[in-house]
Amino acid sequence: MDIKQYLEQKRQDVDRFLDSVMPPESAPPANLHKAMRYSLFAGGKRVRPILAIAAYEAVGGASPFILPLASSLELIHTYSLIHDDLPAMDNDDYRRGKLTNHKVFGEAMAILAGDALLTMAFDLVSRPDLVNGLDPRSQVNVIQELAAGSGNVGMVGGQVADIEAEGKDIDLATLEGVHRWKTGKLIRASVRIGGIAGSATAEQVNRLTAYAEDIGLAFQIADDVLNVTGTREELGKDANTDASRGKKTYPTFFGVDGARKLADERVASAIAHLTDFGPKAEPLRELARYITARKN
Amino acid sequence: MDIKQYLEQKRQDVDRFLDSVMPPESAPPANLHKAMRYSLFAGGKRVRPILAIAAYEAVGGASPFILPLASSLELIHTYSLIHDDLPAMDNDDYRRGKLTNHKVFGEAMAILAGDALLTMAFDLVSRPDLVNGLDPRSQVNVIQELAAGSGNVGMVGGQVADIEAEGKDIDLATLEGVHRWKTGKLIRASVRIGGIAGSATAEQVNRLTAYAEDIGLAFQIADDVLNVTGTREELGKDANTDASRGKKTYPTFFGVDGARKLADERVASAIAHLTDFGPKAEPLRELARYITARKN
Repeated sequence: MDIKQYLEQKRQDVDRFLDSVMPPESAPPANLHKAMRYSLFAGGKRVRPILAIAAYEAVGGASPFILPLASSLELIHTYSLIHDDLPAMDNDDYRRGKLTNHKVFGEAMAILAGDALLTMAFDLVSRPDLVNGLDPRSQVNVIQELAAGSGNVGMVGGQVADIEAEGKDIDLATLEGVHRWKTGKLIRASVRIGGIAGSATAEQVNRLTAYAEDIGLAFQIADDVLNVTGTREELGKDANTDASRGKKTYPTFFGVDGARKLADERVASAIAHLTDFGPKAEPLRELARYITARKN
Repeated sequence: MDIKQYLEQKRQDVDRFLDSVMPPESAPPANLHKAMRYSLFAGGKRVRPILAIAAYEAVGGASPFILPLASSLELIHTYSLIHDDLPAMDNDDYRRGKLTNHKVFGEAMAILAGDALLTMAFDLVSRPDLVNGLDPRSQVNVIQELAAGSGNVGMVGGQVADIEAEGKDIDLATLEGVHRWKTGKLIRASVRIGGIAGSATAEQVNRLTAYAEDIGLAFQIADDVLNVTGTREELGKDANTDASRGKKTYPTFFGVDGARKLADERVASAIAHLTDFGPKAEPLRELARYITARKN
């Protein structure tokens, strides 16, 4: 299969869906909707929604209700980027090659746009007109995955741990703990949501979860490597920022080559968990390979 | 009935429940959990959870699953206060007589504590161990009410409209629009959630909604009046801040006595919507009366 074509097609599906459910910029409160759309359509790769869709299809799912479920993950991811970029947090001026949300709309609006995107994620997954045909019990389970993956012992907790680790001489276990929460839990939720929505068996959900945990770590290691090796043009943001901030990363512990090797091992392990899934899981396998091959 | 006793008992039920589900301060990430607990247990009256419980009981509900549903509203309310108080928003130092969250924990942690509380609201309402016995279809409908009431065309949208109206010469219709979103939508959601969880008929939900819209407006008018007439001790925060900020409020348009009269009319209208509900709705009626009689 052609993973680039798959990614492009699914990205378009997700973008089209998101555009159809996001209020237009002219609808009041107009400035809020402008700020929400600005970051939501700033060129994201839609990795999390695509993981959810690929997991859904891997277990045989084929209904359009996967789109609101999958897209909710992008709303959560986008809100987290807006809040992470704030002056009180990472104080970043650029994201994906564009000015960050608060640089364009001001701090108050950026905080509120983040809050509204987070809330809209839960709106999407509970809308009766959009999630049509999924049994309500599975729907509640999807919502639980989304909340647990992005909250105090998920993504938000990981951001706290990341802030607290900055500038400190942390060990590898602490670094892994930060990543497992900050990026790992939402990736895990993405894949599990796809499985649950596709009526996967408990055994299948377990294997998808193991796959997700492996690619979550590989994703983060690859990000750390890209921060060292990527250019500003490739990344769409400043390069080598971790080192200049004195942040410990995988390349700090293992060097760039050692970190790359670790990521490759995780990808191989992820793919091994999918042995019993057959050809429908090919996109999931290719996605795992893509994670370490990407340039941004 | 003794409304004060009712309020005190339900407040204790909600507080006990919230304490049981909130991670202890020692659980990592400890600073996040400390910040979340700090604002959550800062002496809130639990008006929204109690409205949900009272509406639930008014339609005959009697299961403990109402507690996670009702308490989720307090998590949303608390997060909104933390974010509203931030330097980029209202820049308030005190709330309920205590230092605001960011004054104690710093701005980054206050933003994240708000994010985590918002997310935890959706965690609570989707947890299978807590929401036990409610049919999943109603559970999804409850989640939809919660999301719609607190998002871009609900509470967050109202905060945006409020910020944009500040210092401007707005008319009464704009003022009412701000309130209908900023406080009205979550109060409306509270009452509707109680009704939906209690398997209310469509007609009952409509009447509860009309009741909620009336008391939502009465609540805001009473708040505006208290801002003029209350003391720092009674309010637990600075008094007369609206006037010093040049903010237009109900007393600006109608004077204190005129505003009080308007609030009383709304309370009477709210109670009239409950005519068919019988004695089980007595707490809802007393709650409506309490809104304009309270001192903080």
